Amino acid sequence: MQPAQWIWYPGDYEIWLGEKMNTRRYYRGVIIPPFWRMDSNYKGIKFNKVVELSEDEDIIIESVGELAFRIDNRYQFPKNGHYTVPKGKHYLFIDVYDPSNVPAIKITGNQINTDSSWNTHCGDTNNLPVECGETAPNGIRFELQELFPETVGDHFYDFGKETFGYIKLSGLQGKGTVKLCYGESPEEAQSEEACEKLDVIEIDGLPEYTHTKSVALRYVKVLSDGVDVTGISLLYEYLPVEYRGTFHCSNEKLNQIWETARYTLHLNTREFFIDGIKRDRWVWGGDAYQSYLMNYYTFFDQDVSKRTLIYNIGKAPFTKHINTILDYTFYWFISLYDYYCYTGDISFVNKYMDRALEIIGYCLSRRDDNGYMNSRPGDWVFLDWADMDKSGVLCAEQVLFCRCLEIMSIFTRLTGKGDVEFFDSLYQEQRKKIDRDFWDDKEGYKHCDHAHKPTKYANIFSLMYDYLDGNKRKIAVENSLKNKDIMQITTPYARFYELDALCKSGEKQYVLDEILDYWGGMLDLGATTFWEEYKKDLSGTEHYAMYDRPFGKSLCHAWGASPLYLIGKYFLGVKPILAGYERYEIDLFKGDLAFIEGSVPTPYGDIEIFYDDTQIKIKPIQTKGILRFETKNPIHIASCKSIGNNRYEAELNGKELVIPL
Amino acid sequence: MQPAQWIWYPGDYEIWLGEKMNTRRYYRGVIIPPFWRMDSNYKGIKFNKVVELSEDEDIIIESVGELAFRIDNRYQFPKNGHYTVPKGKHYLFIDVYDPSNVPAIKITGNQINTDSSWNTHCGDTNNLPVECGETAPNGIRFELQELFPETVGDHFYDFGKETFGYIKLSGLQGKGTVKLCYGESPEEAQSEEACEKLDVIEIDGLPEYTHTKSVALRYVKVLSDGVDVTGISLLYEYLPVEYRGTFHCSNEKLNQIWETARYTLHLNTREFFIDGIKRDRWVWGGDAYQSYLMNYYTFFDQDVSKRTLIYNIGKAPFTKHINTILDYTFYWFISLYDYYCYTGDISFVNKYMDRALEIIGYCLSRRDDNGYMNSRPGDWVFLDWADMDKSGVLCAEQVLFCRCLEIMSIFTRLTGKGDVEFFDSLYQEQRKKIDRDFWDDKEGYKHCDHAHKPTKYANIFSLMYDYLDGNKRKIAVENSLKNKDIMQITTPYARFYELDALCKSGEKQYVLDEILDYWGGMLDLGATTFWEEYKKDLSGTEHYAMYDRPFGKSLCHAWGASPLYLIGKYFLGVKPILAGYERYEIDLFKGDLAFIEGSVPTPYGDIEIFYDDTQIKIKPIQTKGILRFETKNPIHIASCKSIGNNRYEAELNGKELVIPL
Repeated sequence: MQPAQWIWYPGDYEIWLGEKMNTRRYYRGVIIPPFWRMDSNYKGIKFNKVVELSEDEDIIIESVGELAFRIDNRYQFPKNGHYTVPKGKHYLFIDVYDPSNVPAIKITGNQINTDSSWNTHCGDTNNLPVECGETAPNGIRFELQELFPETVGDHFYDFGKETFGYIKLSGLQGKGTVKLCYGESPEEAQSEEACEKLDVIEIDGLPEYTHTKSVALRYVKVLSDGVDVTGISLLYEYLPVEYRGTFHCSNEKLNQIWETARYTLHLNTREFFIDGIKRDRWVWGGDAYQSYLMNYYTFFDQDVSKRTLIYNIGKAPFTKHINTILDYTFYWFISLYDYYCYTGDISFVNKYMDRALEIIGYCLSRRDDNGYMNSRPGDWVFLDWADMDKSGVLCAEQVLFCRCLEIMSIFTRLTGKGDVEFFDSLYQEQRKKIDRDFWDDKEGYKHCDHAHKPTKYANIFSLMYDYLDGNKRKIAVENSLKNKDIMQITTPYARFYELDALCKSGEKQYVLDEILDYWGGMLDLGATTFWEEYKKDLSGTEHYAMYDRPFGKSLCHAWGASPLYLIGKYFLGVKPILAGYERYEIDLFKGDLAFIEGSVPTPYGDIEIFYDDTQIKIKPIQTKGILRFETKNPIHIASCKSIGNNRYEAELNGKELVIPL
Repeated sequence: MQPAQWIWYPGDYEIWLGEKMNTRRYYRGVIIPPFWRMDSNYKGIKFNKVVELSEDEDIIIESVGELAFRIDNRYQFPKNGHYTVPKGKHYLFIDVYDPSNVPAIKITGNQINTDSSWNTHCGDTNNLPVECGETAPNGIRFELQELFPETVGDHFYDFGKETFGYIKLSGLQGKGTVKLCYGESPEEAQSEEACEKLDVIEIDGLPEYTHTKSVALRYVKVLSDGVDVTGISLLYEYLPVEYRGTFHCSNEKLNQIWETARYTLHLNTREFFIDGIKRDRWVWGGDAYQSYLMNYYTFFDQDVSKRTLIYNIGKAPFTKHINTILDYTFYWFISLYDYYCYTGDISFVNKYMDRALEIIGYCLSRRDDNGYMNSRPGDWVFLDWADMDKSGVLCAEQVLFCRCLEIMSIFTRLTGKGDVEFFDSLYQEQRKKIDRDFWDDKEGYKHCDHAHKPTKYANIFSLMYDYLDGNKRKIAVENSLKNKDIMQITTPYARFYELDALCKSGEKQYVLDEILDYWGGMLDLGATTFWEEYKKDLSGTEHYAMYDRPFGKSLCHAWGASPLYLIGKYFLGVKPILAGYERYEIDLFKGDLAFIEGSVPTPYGDIEIFYDDTQIKIKPIQTKGILRFETKNPIHIASCKSIGNNRYEAELNGKELVIPL
């Protein structure tokens, strides 16, 4: 028999953990709780199972919360910590109540062990299969590593790169207060007035002090009153993830971009995918949409993806968009679909299909008379931090919503839940309507339904989701995405979408150049992690300002790490064709690079790739795949089929493949 | 300006308090959490208001929870505990987060004070008006009174009557354990094996110990090991209510019944109306339905009514019947209507109308093909603790549901929310269908839709809600309610309905006799509070058994107190004709009693009544009313109009009225 596991009510751990995570934001001593609804896990939970025992057995019940155990509806009283279940068929029922944690139990016996065969309910619904794990659902196990400053100035310390954790002061002498001014930049740490994070600590005479709150920093200024501080270090706190995805190439700057992106993503991969480690540390659905995709090319950590997907929709009823943002609700559907495509985990989709139907129903109920989703009072239309008109009906939002309808038609078909025909026809109708109402042969999709300056967003999303045919695709790319005369994209967030759309449209060399220029530009300014926003035309400390505050900008923002995804998907070129890599494709691209190499994680292990001008080497996974590549020297190998334009195709069937070029 | 009040999110205090209340049930050391879903209050709440100030002002913000204060969307930092709001028009916004209490604030200033003009939301809905009060919403203020045992035996104490509170041990000598066996009967307290409540306390050498958990008891047996206990008392804990309703008459037994009923109701009137003080202490919707009505004739405590009405429906979504019981959901609608009728508080109905529409929608979605409500899997059809067939379609449930539809048609009309026509026609249709499918000229309404033994329930409810015309009314009364050959009612719970229906049908003398016989029977057995169930044919300790446990029965059960309601409504005869006693009726009845006197509370003060064979004296309230009475001596007073059958009618117009008979 499997060893006993802890069991709990599905989805409740993420709700509980989300509350902890989203209420840790402080701005100079003042709490900044999220502005969306925070839900609570159920505090009273019932676990149950019918067992049939060949003989009496003693069991031990461990629990988070107070418990009451019934056998066949009779309350049981423990003797020396044990309960006895008599032989025969019995209905076991355990009530657990905990006012502040996630109620959970673990039963250990010979024939009875808690595991996924148990059911649970909270008193209102049918029994659901429990969630289970090796440990009780009371937090994430982080790892700690002590880091010391690389350089030390006058009470001013530089840890050498952006980092995160708990400040430890040592060699303390005297009693008094120590003020810690943190900075992602030296200027921020040196500004007691304006640094975003500042802690005041009382030192009571003990020689050491470890802070109880974690912060993001590279620099820290220590201002003490009555206390001598001689040593400082940081307990770096991080989620132990596996560095499965790798990338290396002939361009050192691109290598540095990739490494910096991975570090940026890692710092923001915690209880959930969060936006940035200095300021919000909140679980934003749009930011997460990008982190999921980067994750599939680096850590392939399914747990953090699932936690984030669950947290973002909260408990029923769904009465407001995710994070209050229209587009963020749409990204949830798309992210759930991506999760399914990369992992093949249909059981997760099945579990949340009822919620998906509830949420799409919420969206449908908020359409206007023309069937479009525009913002209703209290909705936030985000799209991007950019100066644009967000009134009326925005085409980009309609394209995103169209993608949701398409995904719901796929999900209803896959899960057997919901009305396939309904979503099919809605999706088809939405595509036609968008085309009819927003297309313009000069600028591609218009920004919105009234006079406006053109923006790229609707064209970007249409390209990403393959909604344009050849001619329109060309107009969208040339007249919108590559048009230098319309509003340019200045956040790495929207650059993710823009560059994804360009890669999809075959503009990979253009994207490679953009990556080197844009992300390389941040490295040139000394970035050790990637930023929330980057505008080339700013200078000096102007780069650190945002939200009307001199150091308001986050310099370690998950959405800054998109080269991980772009390089993995479009240069190493790996993506699933059937869900969970049951079939897959490698479409290699090295552009003007001398070589690229790397590995991409999948549920079947890592795909390893090497590609230079002399050869291609692929260590594939066991499922069937297809390899595509370009080479100027015509090749004549039976396994490689020419597909025109110097491009070739080869089948991948689990065996290592070496193609001399 | 009004003094500042504490403000919080509407409905959240009751949810929070309900969790506390419903998780205090223990059975010999094992927690018994309720089997329905327990919801949580929102932990993050936003308060807001637009103010316009003629000059700058300093304010103090007190809070339950951590707070962040923004003026015009800018975070504020307190100086010496004060914030300054500059003169002019400003948008004040306060975020409050508390992980375990109900977030609340109180702002005190010159021009700015928190009060009912503030709004609040939890992040998901439109702003709602706040709830407010003089104290923070962190519990009910009970009063305590020290009681000493009336008689003392061998470590055995009798407090003289049923009571409730915290045991206090004094004159303690030594260290060891003290076991307290509580009893509502002497036999229970003397049975260490079977008493329902037993506490084991560790005494560590201190001379006094006050227990931290409250219990119900009349008797307590003290078993100590290593400790001498020389003194015992009880800190009686009770809700300070006003004893507004009174009753006195020529029959001492009836007086004793009334006093005992009031004490029974008082003990069960706490955070909420609970079922009984020994065992469950839970908030049951059906039990509460009766307590509400008794309350209107005794304490007229609107707050406890509102708290109970709010708690019982929990948070949206409504996914299971109240307490999982079909009938208890129906009683909620009826109770809300009663609340409106007795108090006139339409604003409360307005506040909960969206929930009422949600809940009736839930019910409508669970009808069978014939439009009837029968039990679905997971539903509990209660009706009564009685041995009856509950399969198929029960007529009584259809009558209760019909009443809900009728009430929803009234509420939609009153509040302007929901579709009046829809509920009107559903109600009419339901009445016709019940009549068509269940009426039988011999037995009145049949028990259910298949072969069955007749029961009284459907006939009782039809009489209560005036759904029978003269002839059918007579059949229902004679062939069902007064029929000694069909199953008799043995719980005070169902007797409430039965006797109410009989009073409504003019059988007041019969009801008076029944009250004296049934409740008098309990008094004869030494009851100091009324019981959960009373069967005359039992003897000795048989009376204390229930649920297969020798002392399982509750001897202090709210539903035992119905004489309060029956006497107030049908003997003193007072009831509102228009909501909130805008118009009212007094229909006096003294039967074979020499005199009755008493007072009935209303929103306009108390109505005082005296009635004997020589005169009627009424001290009325300011609104218009009508007095009806019977007298054998014809009277000729201009203000009294004969209405036949020795009955007279007089108008009440706010002035004291004395009618010589």
